[in-house]
Amino acid sequence: MAPMSTSSLDPAIAARLKRSADGLVPAIAQQYDTGEVLMLGWMDDEALHRTLTTGRCTYWSRSRREYWVKGDTSGHVQHVKSVALDCDGDTLLVKVDQVGAACHTGDRTCFDADVLPLAEQAGRVPPHGS
Amino acid sequence: MAPMSTSSLDPAIAARLKRSADGLVPAIAQQYDTGEVLMLGWMDDEALHRTLTTGRCTYWSRSRREYWVKGDTSGHVQHVKSVALDCDGDTLLVKVDQVGAACHTGDRTCFDADVLPLAEQAGRVPPHGS
Repeated sequence: MAPMSTSSLDPAIAARLKRSADGLVPAIAQQYDTGEVLMLGWMDDEALHRTLTTGRCTYWSRSRREYWVKGDTSGHVQHVKSVALDCDGDTLLVKVDQVGAACHTGDRTCFDADVLPLAEQAGRVPPHGS
Repeated sequence: MAPMSTSSLDPAIAARLKRSADGLVPAIAQQYDTGEVLMLGWMDDEALHRTLTTGRCTYWSRSRREYWVKGDTSGHVQHVKSVALDCDGDTLLVKVDQVGAACHTGDRTCFDADVLPLAEQAGRVPPHGS
């Protein structure tokens, strides 16, 4: 079930969205100037509408089952700079200006703490153009 | 159903993964040096194992229902530089060296073509530190 059955999202945008079975689309939050990938959240139509119209990144919390304006409790808000839909219509890229830490652990991004080991033969990257 | 019921993925990593109902985890591919977010794909345990051990980014194609070594048909391969799991264990960030276009449309990234309009009051980002 989608969190909301109706939304104020522009119908022309809504028509291009390909949602998961639960009515959601993954949204990648990226720091607009440094390029850091901060986190991945989920949006339904209404969360996307609010993100596009309020200037504050708004997600649907799958665990709490409620809208979640990033930073409302932590102060670590995400000011929206741009939003793009991918070629398949099933992923959003939101460029933001992140205040403070994006991660609830206090880390700057949600990807800072758990880098997985590569096998020895992996990670040998040839120079560009080869 | 997960695409494969068994995988060679390190059990210590597999134990930290939180998968969707269909056994998958979203994987964000980012160009390691420029920071461009290239695309989002999906990995099951075996695709992650292959990504960590072969040096080539490998996804599970939900539409074709098969493993997909990025670039095998297009030549636009992704050489793996690093892989990180997020704080919740439900998203992967794969830093890669992308050869050519990441998008099947020929665009460099899958997010180049469809930038959504922000409402006028959105997008007003105060300077850092305010």
